[in-house]
Amino acid sequence: MTQPESVNAAPARDAAALPDVSHLVVGVLGGTGDQGRGLAFRLAKAGQQVIIGSRTAERAQAAADELGLGVRGADNATAARESDIVIVAVPWEGHAATLAELRTELAGKIVVDCVNPLGFDKQGAYALRVEEGSAAQQAAALLPDSRVTAAFHHLSAVLLQDASVDRIDIDVLVLGEDREATGIVQALADRIPGMRGIFAGRLRNAHQVEALVANLISVNRRYKAHAGLRITDV
Amino acid sequence: MTQPESVNAAPARDAAALPDVSHLVVGVLGGTGDQGRGLAFRLAKAGQQVIIGSRTAERAQAAADELGLGVRGADNATAARESDIVIVAVPWEGHAATLAELRTELAGKIVVDCVNPLGFDKQGAYALRVEEGSAAQQAAALLPDSRVTAAFHHLSAVLLQDASVDRIDIDVLVLGEDREATGIVQALADRIPGMRGIFAGRLRNAHQVEALVANLISVNRRYKAHAGLRITDV
Repeated sequence: MTQPESVNAAPARDAAALPDVSHLVVGVLGGTGDQGRGLAFRLAKAGQQVIIGSRTAERAQAAADELGLGVRGADNATAARESDIVIVAVPWEGHAATLAELRTELAGKIVVDCVNPLGFDKQGAYALRVEEGSAAQQAAALLPDSRVTAAFHHLSAVLLQDASVDRIDIDVLVLGEDREATGIVQALADRIPGMRGIFAGRLRNAHQVEALVANLISVNRRYKAHAGLRITDV
Repeated sequence: MTQPESVNAAPARDAAALPDVSHLVVGVLGGTGDQGRGLAFRLAKAGQQVIIGSRTAERAQAAADELGLGVRGADNATAARESDIVIVAVPWEGHAATLAELRTELAGKIVVDCVNPLGFDKQGAYALRVEEGSAAQQAAALLPDSRVTAAFHHLSAVLLQDASVDRIDIDVLVLGEDREATGIVQALADRIPGMRGIFAGRLRNAHQVEALVANLISVNRRYKAHAGLRITDV
């Protein structure tokens, strides 16, 4: 918040302290969907090497060709194996099955879950109850050999994919148990102009971050917006 | 988000369309706690008539005297009866019992629940599971004759109470089923310099708004901040 320095003399978020991630290869599982394609576009545009993963290599390649920017396409297993950081942007319906199949390929990788388990009815969106607590916790349970984080939940797929939008001024809440991994994911978010990666807790607090998308959908409906979040005073 | 007008040509939030609430009396149940006292201070400073409610009139009066600004103190039942809008800022432990007792006094009133059901352990804060889904839904279940809304969850009690802080630049997410009531609560938030009341959905989506305070606590710990939210593109 805007406030006198006396209230907060401590150093705020120090972007320079985050690691250099420019050399890391980013895979996007479900990269042919709106959210995945939008993230792949933004990260590739920022100079990151990106591999789009899909169930079939052909569909992934077609999406990659459309994006250009050096983006490659591959089946999900190949994309996972050849990436350092793997963003999971599959539909919630396919979340558990996709991850269970890729346990070996994802071992040792930083996994970034951005899936929002939502239901929809006449009154709009609502959070689904997830047995493990959240999509991110489900991922952590299915991928015990991976470094599972959660991030990139609140991005508008419309804005991500709109090439006429140069900056997306929002904050990306990054959650996880592994401080090095969350730092890398924060740094990845920071690569996209306008975005900041903000550490926002452990995976046990991922549910509400995922579910908040239902509220952003209500905001979007009421205000005809593409709403996102900024964290104040950081 | 900052973006070309073409992306969002629709009117954003129109503060002028919100009702005039300057004449409404605001009660704050649990007004002797940090959050309640902070809200009472900010609203009174903004020119609102405020009554602090507490279990005993004496404690409420002592807190009111400390605040000045014309704030009155009363027992919870009297505060509820004499107010148009009643903010519920009691500890989660006393939430259900306090509201159940005040059903008659709160009938017909706009009730604003700002309670965050959280647990704490060595790893920090986490969301408690609430039978009804959320504190706000519990309030709605216990107060069928009231107009229950949820708002003011993400405010730092430290900043609210710090008289040297003139503005608190954050957004207040307002939830509820009753559009007139949520509009009044939005307008109330707008009275405090720097704050905006943003409609953010129905009460079934209150849980994640309440629980997000656990994430803000993580943010505060990591960044030595008093974090809040801004909604972008609105």
